[in-house]
Amino acid sequence: MSNKIITIGREFASGGRLIGKELADRLGVTYYDKNILDHIAEKNGYSVEMIEEDERRAKNGFFYSLSNAFGAAGYGPDTLSINEKFFIAQFEYILELAKEGNGGVIVGRCADYVLRDFDDAVNVFIFADEASKIKRATEVYGLDADDVKKYMGDMDKARANYYKYHTGQKWGEMRNYDLSIDSSNLREKDVADLILKYVDMRYQA
Amino acid sequence: MSNKIITIGREFASGGRLIGKELADRLGVTYYDKNILDHIAEKNGYSVEMIEEDERRAKNGFFYSLSNAFGAAGYGPDTLSINEKFFIAQFEYILELAKEGNGGVIVGRCADYVLRDFDDAVNVFIFADEASKIKRATEVYGLDADDVKKYMGDMDKARANYYKYHTGQKWGEMRNYDLSIDSSNLREKDVADLILKYVDMRYQA
Repeated sequence: MSNKIITIGREFASGGRLIGKELADRLGVTYYDKNILDHIAEKNGYSVEMIEEDERRAKNGFFYSLSNAFGAAGYGPDTLSINEKFFIAQFEYILELAKEGNGGVIVGRCADYVLRDFDDAVNVFIFADEASKIKRATEVYGLDADDVKKYMGDMDKARANYYKYHTGQKWGEMRNYDLSIDSSNLREKDVADLILKYVDMRYQA
Repeated sequence: MSNKIITIGREFASGGRLIGKELADRLGVTYYDKNILDHIAEKNGYSVEMIEEDERRAKNGFFYSLSNAFGAAGYGPDTLSINEKFFIAQFEYILELAKEGNGGVIVGRCADYVLRDFDDAVNVFIFADEASKIKRATEVYGLDADDVKKYMGDMDKARANYYKYHTGQKWGEMRNYDLSIDSSNLREKDVADLILKYVDMRYQA
């Protein structure tokens, strides 16, 4: 078991989730992605549906900012919006995970930002060219070929909006990651190998 | 000997040059950086001094664009500026190298852009945090500690201006590289290992 936390930011259909699961298996640590919400919901009394609604709304950047600024679901402007509350709960949960020292792989959730000053965190970003993302989205995820481009675009826009809103930074800037990898010409297993090699080198010294 | 061309974009003092030399040694191929100018100068009758003057001027983005637009060193506006001529000669030389199939490592020179559609090219960008760059610049390159920050900033600004002018793109965007690596916590040798691992994986399939 490793005590390292690996965070993975990723474009939709670049293979980030599969790579993350492979890494977690190989390191013997827990894998987190949207499932982190189950833990947080349980701990804080939010429902997973409320949190997923927050994600869905992030697809429209302007509306998302507005709903955060003026509150939503009954929260007034004098209090934190529910989006902010989710984010803060998530932020604290991720920090807690890192401090516990049992390692983990976290896909998405702005985890690179949360752990930016944490020495035992390795931040990775996975992207790919359009052709290889379309191939994975249709063949592996089973998406309809007619809608896949729009769907992929919407998903990445939502991720960029969510990241920008909560971190103030542009999503997918190489300087926020230890390693950025174009997965287009690689198998998921190979990308996991490459990341493990980086982790070994970084902590052997 | 490998037939692959590895291009390395890099921030000043991130170790890109040392990593490139290590890679060239390990692959048994020729290493190119500013020394590419010797070959081009010889072939085209330019002097290395003229080319270095072009680089120096790139430090001022506005003046650099102006000097390209209106010509320099006796070239009128009706002809290509000398900067453009250098760039085109360099562009052709790099393409020629790639087509010859003897491999190589090219540091800088917008080589990633020149070879962006070339299947046997692997494009890498190396960057690092300020502390580790200052350490390398003073301890390895022997720069004066008082001036090092300004010098590093000027060098990277020149590289960004040069890249922007000649490629129309922002320097250091992850999507232009197969692999972007923060070298801060790694030895140059380890970064070279990581790149070689990527090359092996990419071409094994």
